[in-house]
This record gives sequence, C-alpha cells and structure tokens, in this order.
Amino acid sequence: MLVSALLTSLGINTGLCVLFFTLYSILRKQPIHYEVYVPRLLAEGSSKRRSRFNLERLIPSPGWVKKAWQISEEDILSFAGLDGVVFMRLITFSLKIFVVAGIIGIFILLPVNCTGDQLEEIDFADLSNNSLDVFTISNVKSGSKRLWVHFCAVYVVTGFIWWLLYYEYNYISSKRITYFYSSKPQPHQFTILVRSIPVSSGSNVDESVESFFREYHPSTYLSHMVVRRTSKLRNLINDGKKMYKRIVHLQSDPNQQKYKRVGLFGHKVDLIDHYEKKLEDIEENVRLVQSEVSLAEEEVRAAFVSFKSRYGAAIASHLQQSVNPTHWITEQAPEPHDVYWPFFSSSFMRKWISKLLVIVACIVLTILFLIPVLLVQGLTNLSQLEIWFPFLKSVLTLTFVSQVITGYLPSLILQLFLKIVPPIMEFLSSIQGYISHSDIEKSACNKVLWFTIWNIFFATVFSGSVLYQISIILDPKNIPAKLAVAVPAQASFFIAYVVTSGWTSTSSELFRIIPLLCSLIRRPFVKSTDEDFEVPSIPYHRDIPRILFFGLLGTTYFFLAPLILPFLLVYLCLAFIIYRNQFINVYAPKYDTAGKFWPIVHNSMIFSLVLMHAIAVGIFTAKKLSLASTLIFPLPVMTLLFNEYCRKRFLPNFIAYPAEVLIKKDRQEEGDPNMAEFFGSLVTAYQDPALVPIRYSTSTDSLNSPLISSSEV
Amino acid sequence: MLVSALLTSLGINTGLCVLFFTLYSILRKQPIHYEVYVPRLLAEGSSKRRSRFNLERLIPSPGWVKKAWQISEEDILSFAGLDGVVFMRLITFSLKIFVVAGIIGIFILLPVNCTGDQLEEIDFADLSNNSLDVFTISNVKSGSKRLWVHFCAVYVVTGFIWWLLYYEYNYISSKRITYFYSSKPQPHQFTILVRSIPVSSGSNVDESVESFFREYHPSTYLSHMVVRRTSKLRNLINDGKKMYKRIVHLQSDPNQQKYKRVGLFGHKVDLIDHYEKKLEDIEENVRLVQSEVSLAEEEVRAAFVSFKSRYGAAIASHLQQSVNPTHWITEQAPEPHDVYWPFFSSSFMRKWISKLLVIVACIVLTILFLIPVLLVQGLTNLSQLEIWFPFLKSVLTLTFVSQVITGYLPSLILQLFLKIVPPIMEFLSSIQGYISHSDIEKSACNKVLWFTIWNIFFATVFSGSVLYQISIILDPKNIPAKLAVAVPAQASFFIAYVVTSGWTSTSSELFRIIPLLCSLIRRPFVKSTDEDFEVPSIPYHRDIPRILFFGLLGTTYFFLAPLILPFLLVYLCLAFIIYRNQFINVYAPKYDTAGKFWPIVHNSMIFSLVLMHAIAVGIFTAKKLSLASTLIFPLPVMTLLFNEYCRKRFLPNFIAYPAEVLIKKDRQEEGDPNMAEFFGSLVTAYQDPALVPIRYSTSTDSLNSPLISSSEV
Repeated sequence: MLVSALLTSLGINTGLCVLFFTLYSILRKQPIHYEVYVPRLLAEGSSKRRSRFNLERLIPSPGWVKKAWQISEEDILSFAGLDGVVFMRLITFSLKIFVVAGIIGIFILLPVNCTGDQLEEIDFADLSNNSLDVFTISNVKSGSKRLWVHFCAVYVVTGFIWWLLYYEYNYISSKRITYFYSSKPQPHQFTILVRSIPVSSGSNVDESVESFFREYHPSTYLSHMVVRRTSKLRNLINDGKKMYKRIVHLQSDPNQQKYKRVGLFGHKVDLIDHYEKKLEDIEENVRLVQSEVSLAEEEVRAAFVSFKSRYGAAIASHLQQSVNPTHWITEQAPEPHDVYWPFFSSSFMRKWISKLLVIVACIVLTILFLIPVLLVQGLTNLSQLEIWFPFLKSVLTLTFVSQVITGYLPSLILQLFLKIVPPIMEFLSSIQGYISHSDIEKSACNKVLWFTIWNIFFATVFSGSVLYQISIILDPKNIPAKLAVAVPAQASFFIAYVVTSGWTSTSSELFRIIPLLCSLIRRPFVKSTDEDFEVPSIPYHRDIPRILFFGLLGTTYFFLAPLILPFLLVYLCLAFIIYRNQFINVYAPKYDTAGKFWPIVHNSMIFSLVLMHAIAVGIFTAKKLSLASTLIFPLPVMTLLFNEYCRKRFLPNFIAYPAEVLIKKDRQEEGDPNMAEFFGSLVTAYQDPALVPIRYSTSTDSLNSPLISSSEV
Repeated sequence: MLVSALLTSLGINTGLCVLFFTLYSILRKQPIHYEVYVPRLLAEGSSKRRSRFNLERLIPSPGWVKKAWQISEEDILSFAGLDGVVFMRLITFSLKIFVVAGIIGIFILLPVNCTGDQLEEIDFADLSNNSLDVFTISNVKSGSKRLWVHFCAVYVVTGFIWWLLYYEYNYISSKRITYFYSSKPQPHQFTILVRSIPVSSGSNVDESVESFFREYHPSTYLSHMVVRRTSKLRNLINDGKKMYKRIVHLQSDPNQQKYKRVGLFGHKVDLIDHYEKKLEDIEENVRLVQSEVSLAEEEVRAAFVSFKSRYGAAIASHLQQSVNPTHWITEQAPEPHDVYWPFFSSSFMRKWISKLLVIVACIVLTILFLIPVLLVQGLTNLSQLEIWFPFLKSVLTLTFVSQVITGYLPSLILQLFLKIVPPIMEFLSSIQGYISHSDIEKSACNKVLWFTIWNIFFATVFSGSVLYQISIILDPKNIPAKLAVAVPAQASFFIAYVVTSGWTSTSSELFRIIPLLCSLIRRPFVKSTDEDFEVPSIPYHRDIPRILFFGLLGTTYFFLAPLILPFLLVYLCLAFIIYRNQFINVYAPKYDTAGKFWPIVHNSMIFSLVLMHAIAVGIFTAKKLSLASTLIFPLPVMTLLFNEYCRKRFLPNFIAYPAEVLIKKDRQEEGDPNMAEFFGSLVTAYQDPALVPIRYSTSTDSLNSPLISSSEV
C-alpha cells in the first residue's frame, strides 16, 4: 500500500468523524432526540424536554467535550458502577501503554526503519508515493546492528506493560474491595443459589430446602425461594403486554381505524372492545397458570437460599454440602434482576445438548466468517481484482478509485460483518447454561475477543484456508518463523484498519446511528410516551473486545511498524472522550459485576505480549540476528510466570470476597436498625418476575400510566 | 518367540515361586526371623519369641495361606487402615476384570485367533514349536468377519470395566465417609496449616496468628503452634542418637574392645566414658539450640491452627482468609506424625528451585532409563546378539540357553533396573515441596506409574529412541495406526514379562529377600534388641503402580493376545494371598490417607481403556474392517465423559469431607466428656518432634530402655 492510499483513507475517515461530531453536537440539543442521546439523564429526571426553540440549538457546540473531560472516576462510579470504571481504566491503560510505546516508536524506531535500505531509498521529495513498507522493520538490512534498537524497545515496552498490568490489577482489585465495603446491603450478598436438590418421596423441594438448611445452618439460615418452571407463563405475559400496547396505541391515536369486520361479511366490531376482551382472557389465563405453577409439580430442583450474614452465605457456597457432591450444588447468587430465568426452565438434557451445539456453532461461525474476510483480502489486491473482473480495468486505473478500494473499502466491509458477531455470540452464550445476564455477557465478551483475534488477526496474517491456519497452530516450532514473514507484510492493512474500524466505530458510537435510525423510523408509527423507552446499558461484550484487539495490534506492531501508533493514540483519545460522554448521558448499568471484566483484559494483554515475543523471535531470526532472537526467549517465559503470579495474587478476589472482608462488613452493620427491613425485603427478593402481579408499564414512574394488576400471586 | 521359550520361562518362574513359598513356610516359623516375617505381630506383642525347638518348625506348612484367605475386610481395616483396604480392593478389582476378560478371551477369542490362517496353520502335533503369534489377533485374516467377535469383546469388557469402576469408586467413597464417622477424634481433623503469615513490624508470627484467628474465628479458634526452623537441631539429635546406640552396643557386648588410645602415644581411654561425655556435649548443645529455636528469629511463617470443631477447621481451610490471597494460605493439616518437617526449613527460593530440578530430574531419568531397556530389547533378539558377540554363537545354538535368553533374561534385567525407580521417585517427591509423607508417597506413586507406562510399555512397543517416541506423541492422528503395528508384535514379550516380573516379584515380596539379607548381614554385628527394629509400612508407591501396570497390560492385550490373561490371573491370585498375609504379619501403617490412592487407580484404568480403544481403532483399520474401527470411536469419548462424571460425583469426597458429615460428626461428640482431654492434647499435638525432650529409644515399650531426657522444651 502506498502512503497516498493511507492518506485517502485517513481523509475519508477524518471527514466522517468531523461530520459525526458536528451532527452530534447539533442533534443532541434537539428535544426530539433526547431519547437517543440523553436517555440516562431523561430517566433520572435531571433533563427535561424543553420545547422552547432557540437558535443556539442549531449551532454545534463542544461543551460536552469539556464536560466529559472534567468528570472524575467517582462520578463514573456513581453513573456506571465499577464496571464502567473498569472500562474507562481499560482505555486509559491502553493510552498509557501506547504513549510510551509511541514515543519510543516514533522518535527512535521510525527513523531507524526509514534510514534502512533493505527495500528502497525513501523518496523524501514525494512522500506520498513511498510504499508504507519503507516505514517498517522490513526496510532494515538483515544482520544490521541497528536491529538491537528494536530489541531494546521490545524489552523496555514489555517491562512497562508488566508494571502497568500489575499496577492496574492491584488497583482494581483493591477498588473492588472498597466498593464492596461501601455498598449498601444487597440481596445477592446474602444469598446463594442451590441446585440439584434431592427430594425424598412424599416431600417437595420446598420442604427439602427448609429442613436441610435448618439442620445444617441453623444459626445463619434466613429464608429460601424455590425456582419454578415459568416459560409458559412468560409467553402469556408477553402476549398480554403486546395486547396492552395495541390498546393504548388505539386509544391515544384518534386517526386510527377503530373498527374491523369480523369474517368476510361479518358485522363491524369495536377494535378496542375486541382487544380488551382478549386481554382479559389472557389475564385470566395468566392467573390460572400462576396458581398452577405454584403447585409442587412445576418446581425446579433449585432454590435461592438467603442467610442472615454475608459470611454465612459464603460458608454455605464454598463448602461441599452433601455426601453426594452432585447434590446440593451451591454457588453465589447473582443480583435479583441479573438472574437469567429462562435458564431454569430447560431440562438437564436440553442444557447439555445446547452446550454441545454452542461449541459446534462457534466453530461453524469461525469457518464461515472467513468468506467475507477472504473477499476483503481480494479487494486489497488490485491486480487480483483486475484478473477477476476484467471489465473494471478502466475504472480501477483512476487513482482515486484505486486508493479508495485499497485503503478504505476492505476495512469497511470487514467492519460491517463484524457488527453482527457480538449479538450472535451473546445469543450463543445465553443458551450455554449461565444463570445470570452478567455471566452471559462475560462469556460473550471472551467469545468475541477470541473470535476477533482468530478471524481478523490470524486470518489476515495467514490469508489462507482454515486448514492452513490450523496446520500452523499444530506445528508450534515454526510459528515464529511463519509469523515473521506474514505479520510485517500486513502492517499497512492494519494501519488502515485502525483508522477505519477504530475511528469510525467510536464516532458512530457517539452519533448512535442505529438507535437514531430506529427512533426516526418508529416515530411516525408509535406515539412517543415517556414510559415507552428503556435506558440502554453498554454492551461490554462488543466494546471491550474491540479495544483489546486494538491493544493486540498496537503491542504486536509497535516495533514492526511504529507508524500504527499515532493512529491508535488518536483512536484511544476519541474513545476516552466519547465513552465518558456516553456514560454521562446514555448508558445506565443494568447490573454490576464489580469489575469482573478485568481478568479478561489481563489475559488478553498477556496473550498479546507472548504473541509479540513470538513475532520478535521470528523477525530477529529472519533478519539473521540469532543472538537477539535467543535473548528474547526469557521474555515469554517471564511473562507467563508473571501471569501465574497475578492469577494467584489477584484472581481469587475477583471470584469471591475473602472471609476477612465479609466478616468486617457484617460486623459493621450489626447494630444497624435498617437491617430488619432489609431482611424483610430479602425474603421476596428472588421472586420470579413472571410470578409477581402483572404490570404493563416498563417505566419506573408509574403514577401516570394505567395499571392492570392481579392481586394474587 | 516360540511357545517352548515361554514354557521355559514359565518353568523357571514356577520353580522360583515354589522355592520361595517353601522357604517362607519354614523360615517364618523360626524365632530368629520373626523380625523379618512377623514384625507387626511382634510389635503388637501378640507373637512371642518362643525359643523351644520342635520338629514342626522345619516342615513347611500352608497354614498361613488359609489364614490369609479367611480374614475379612474389617480385619484388614483394623490391621492396615483404609489404605490397606483400598490396596486389597485394587487387587480384587483387577481380578474381577480379568476373570470376565479371561473367560471371553480364552473361550471365545483364542479359538478364533488359532483357527485363523493369516500367519500359518497351527501345528497341533507339536504345540511348543508354534510361534506365540499364532494365538494373537495377527493370525486372523484381514477383513475377516471373525474380527467382529473381537469388536464385541472390546465393547463388553469396556462396559464391564465402566460398571466396576463406578461401583468401586462409589464403594470406597462411602467407605471413606463411614471410616470418618467411626474414627476417634484425631488432631488433623481439627487442625489446619496456615502459611505465608504476614507479620507487622514489632510483632511476631505467634502474635499475628493469635490476633488474626481471635478476630475472625472467635467462636471456633482453639490454639496454634508456630513452625520453627529445626534442620540444625534435627542433625544434632541424629548425632546424639547414633552416639547413644554406640554406647548401648558397647555396654551390652562384653567382647567389644572398650579402650582406645588417644593420639599416637596417648594414654588409654575408656570408650564408654569417652562416648558418654560426647553425648552429654551433644545434649547440652541440643538444649541450647532448642532454646535458641524458641526465639522469634527462627520462626517460619507457618503455623498449625487448631479449632474446637471439625466444621470450624473446614470453614477456615476452604475460605480465602485475607484480602491478599497470597497471605494466610490455609489447607487441611496432615496427621501429626505424617508431617514432613524438613520441608518447613527450606526457604521459598530453595523450594522453587528444587521443584524445577525435580522436573528436570524426572525427564533425565526417563531418558537414561531407556539404555537398559534397549539392552533388554537387544537380548530378546538372538540373531542380533550373535552379530554383536560372534564368540557366543556356539553357546546360543543350545536350545535351553537360547530359550532362557529370549524367555527369561530380558524381563529379569528390566525388573532389576525397575527396582531402583520407586526410591528415586520418592526422593524426588520429597524435595518437591509436599508437607506430608503421605503426599510425598502419593506423588511418588503417580510418578512411578507414568514412568512405568512410558518406559516399559511405550519404550518396548516403539523400541526406538526417545525422540521417536516423542514424535509419535506429537502426531496424534497416526497414533492408532502406529500402535496397531507395534503393540501386537510385543505380545510375547509382555506375556513373559507378566510371568517374570509379576510372579517373581510377588513371591519375593512374600519371602522379603532384601530385609532377610539385611537382617542376616546385620545380625553378627548388632545385638538384636526388641527396641531396635521398626515395623515397616507397605511402600504403596512401589506396589500400586506395579499392579496398575499389569492392569494396563491386561486391558490393552486381552483382545490382541488373550493368552496373557491366565498368567495375569495367576499373578493376581498370588498377590491376593500374599499381600493379605503381609498385612496380617508384616506391615503396619504409619499414617492413613483414608483411601486417597483410589483416584490414582481410577485415572490409570481410564487411561488403559482409552489406550485400548486407540489400539482397537488401529487394529481394525489395519485389518481392513473400517466399519468396526469407526464404531469403536464412541467408546473413548464415552469413557472420557464417564471419567468426567466420576470426577464430579466422587472426587470431591476424596479431597475434603462435606459439611453435612463434619457437622454430624461434631454433634455426635458434643456431650462427650473425653473431648476436654482430647482438646488438651490437641494443643501440643503439632509440636515439632525436634523440640520435644529427647528420648533415645524408638520402641513403644519404653519401660526397660534407659531414658535420657531434658526437662525443658
């Protein structure tokens, strides 16, 4: 790729970014778009819909940038929970790394690369006509002493990343403990989930749980809630909700046709009456099924068991309870609104088969995904394209067209295909057997991350068939050599990828294109009511893998092609401002894992480091500097040992809270008069939402919305 | 190998066995050999040294066989603990498998193999001149429908082994719980070992432990015992013991020279006086060091912490105690006399380096061990031998010599080399960082097992260099094909191996050659005193891997060469009687892991099964019965799933006791008046033996032995 092609791509993307920023600065001030741009504030009630028009609203203003810049970590903690803080720290963590790597890369490595003469002399007169390869390590002569500069850079940056990884893990780990200390009593801290409850004949799950915990945890046991099979009920309630919406819509819209003919020659029927009757039927049905579900037959052999202290719950969840280890399986309960209820409805066999299917589906997805990637690879190769489509020859000779095709289009297509991966992965995780939404998201985050690394990094680098990639993995001895040949060759593609995928994706995150389009399309049909919209939560499983993948690109390419670093830094700065702004205005957390995403970040960085070392070994061998490649070897070994240490030192705190903390927290509240009330609410905290009386409004402020509720449970 | 060679080997070994049995039957009745043959009974006091001579003592009698046959499992439990029961069940478990496999093999598979005609027609007139290969699957024609008989046999035996594995795991698991319920209160049930104790400045380990457990476990904490660095002290005490023995020896033996000259022209010195003075010096020194060790500087950051209930100890050992997971690391304590004290003396770095060294040492041992194995392989090949040593030609042409060499010698040499492996592995495990003797033995058991499988099975089957073996392992796709070629070819070697190694080793176990020789050599020098001898404990790390290896041979060869099964059955019957006899007369357990060896047995059988399936796949492919080889595939998958299930179902009970059991056991003793006394003794149970007052006698009956003790601790 030539410098000019990169510049074209850069131009297009910068233009797009500026456009998005400008549009956002205007649109966010229009009350009609509040739902898209400030849903969090709207729900909080701190932003009111002002209908008064003034000119200021039409002038783009950068005030939000200042605001986003100024907020502190405590603010983010209160807006977005500890997960939000961890997410922002991921961005600042990457920024710190690439500022250091960038200084080394741009001021030391880039001059060394440019003044090499392996490929060609750099043409300073016409910079844009140089191949991008001139700026990479490929331009340094084999066996040159100058390669020791790269060697030192690898050591320095690796050391810096170790230090930063340790520092951040330590910081977030202690933050997690502080967060726990400062938290109000929450149901999930006092509750465990018990599964595989054995039931003797003539008894039921309810009685079994009661007698077991009264027997073995007499001093700490508080109450329990048996889980019931409610998939049928959930479907009915959803039907009811739909029906209710239709009625509200008909009532509020005077232009709507309110009568319809029954049958071909039937009489006219009042639609509202008709729907209300249907709704009543459904409600009757719901009540019937609810009382049916309360019977013993619909009991699942699982229950949420609450305790009088956090320590009591922890003891019960850590110790094997029964002589038969497959009975009374205990684990810490998720937050009540984080529970993934459909999971409990499926049978053991169904879960087992789903799990197998998920594994197969992931493999199939990985294989099929290579088709668009290969297409993208084809597009970056103009001569290949001319052979395939000879009629395009005349068009492709135009400089601009060829530059767009080689510089911009490939990344864009890849980008669009990648958009559909996170939802698919989330769906796959949801049928895999996790009991909470947060676990599903964490698992999806991991899936998307490894999918991205495999399908973007390795598929691009070894642009071949899946079988070829697998054959490389199965021949570990030659991985460095193959990486050394393939990785630097793709430097220009990944620089373009950072610009296209990174820059555009963050600015479109700011502009919220898809929610905006949805809102524009829906508006004419649905009358906007305040109760109708939901505050979105940030899809961590989409955004964390993306940032981590850029981290991987930065880590592996910083010494091969330092030119990638400025673009990465711009991306990270954009992300820093934009996500802070989004946390202020858009997203509200649905649940809080209290920083459990950080171990994923840590593992991914460790992988990036080891990959970088493998490439370095390969490069130095290929460049005939075998001493350097030998001296790199301690680095991956030490990285893995470092990782092992971190696993021992920090990971346990991300899985469960230690006894010391639990006991201290319990004692702190011992005399608190509010605890009685809390324990009262704890008894019903884990009620299945399908079993509580029906309410058809989703808004928190339910005073103005009609309520239809059934009094019985 | 011809049938006649096998018969020769059989003859020699049967002869040896009969000889050993006869000698044993006579020698065991001689009071002079009681120490070798009935040390357990002697120590128990149930067998007295009768000096009265009668003729009966010289006539071999098989009474002991009857006695060994008649004892029940409860007897073994009382003689040898649950570990002894598990060991005997391993033998009966193998017996059950090979009785079933034997019936199928001998009555169904063997006729099928013999009537095949792939190799040659069997010569019924002169059976001993047939090659042993005639009896193996190699003799069945490729593509023959008869191979389906073998296929069915594989399925039937696999199913039977699954059932038996499940049954045994279940049985031993429940036995373990019953054993726990019926056990008296024991110190290790109430105690945990805490390591990495943080110490604030101005404090010491003792105070840290006290304040931490008083703070966080106020209701259950009882006492603690800080571990101290005592390697110096241990050396001194050993010196003292040696000196004491020398004095006793001098005192008791009137013929011994009691004076020696000091210097070249010095005066004569009374040796006893001289030694007693030395001993006093040492004792003085010991007291000095003991009081030194009691100071804070010699504290190790580890302590045994005792609790008032088993459940309390379990809670403390299962939950992460401190915010920093690398501090206050807890684990269940071993029995007091099972603690491996030297472990605590070494520093962290020394432990870490030792661990690395152990790994390297294991690899080196594996590589070097191939040299004798290759030599053995060479010996089985007569023509090879003639090329190497042409002068032997005339000797080798003698039928008998050649039969001894091919049939017997190879296994014997291998056998002798194998003898030294268990002690080496035990030594390696002891420096690897385990805190108890039982853990060391378990780890050594695993090491010896995998060493045996790798170095005997794989090295014999792929009789090539280590590199060749590793290249096979690294090419998993072709393992079945390579096994299919190599494994049946070695059938005759392994049949001979069972006879030589198995039969002879068990009968020499009965005859106790090495202890007998030691006792004979020592007798003239040391005057036998009752206090001087120690009851041996059975070296599980030597015997379990041996039986498991025969299990592996039986499982993998039963459908290839069913002729191996009768020999295996004879071996197992011998082992059954002999080990029962040894448990009655010889061995006394030093500590009891309560059946923790069984998971090793289970894993080994699962490995044998999967290996057998891999060989079956290879064989059926090689025999051009691809449908059968495809239909074998579900078997390894199901075996691994079965193993996964067993890990979930049984393994947790072998790691820790469940809460239910602990609480029940605690409640059972709540009102017991003896508990106060027990708790009193618990406080000092984990005293380092080097710190208790010195006693120079090892006998339990100390009334008659002189006691030299220091009053201070």
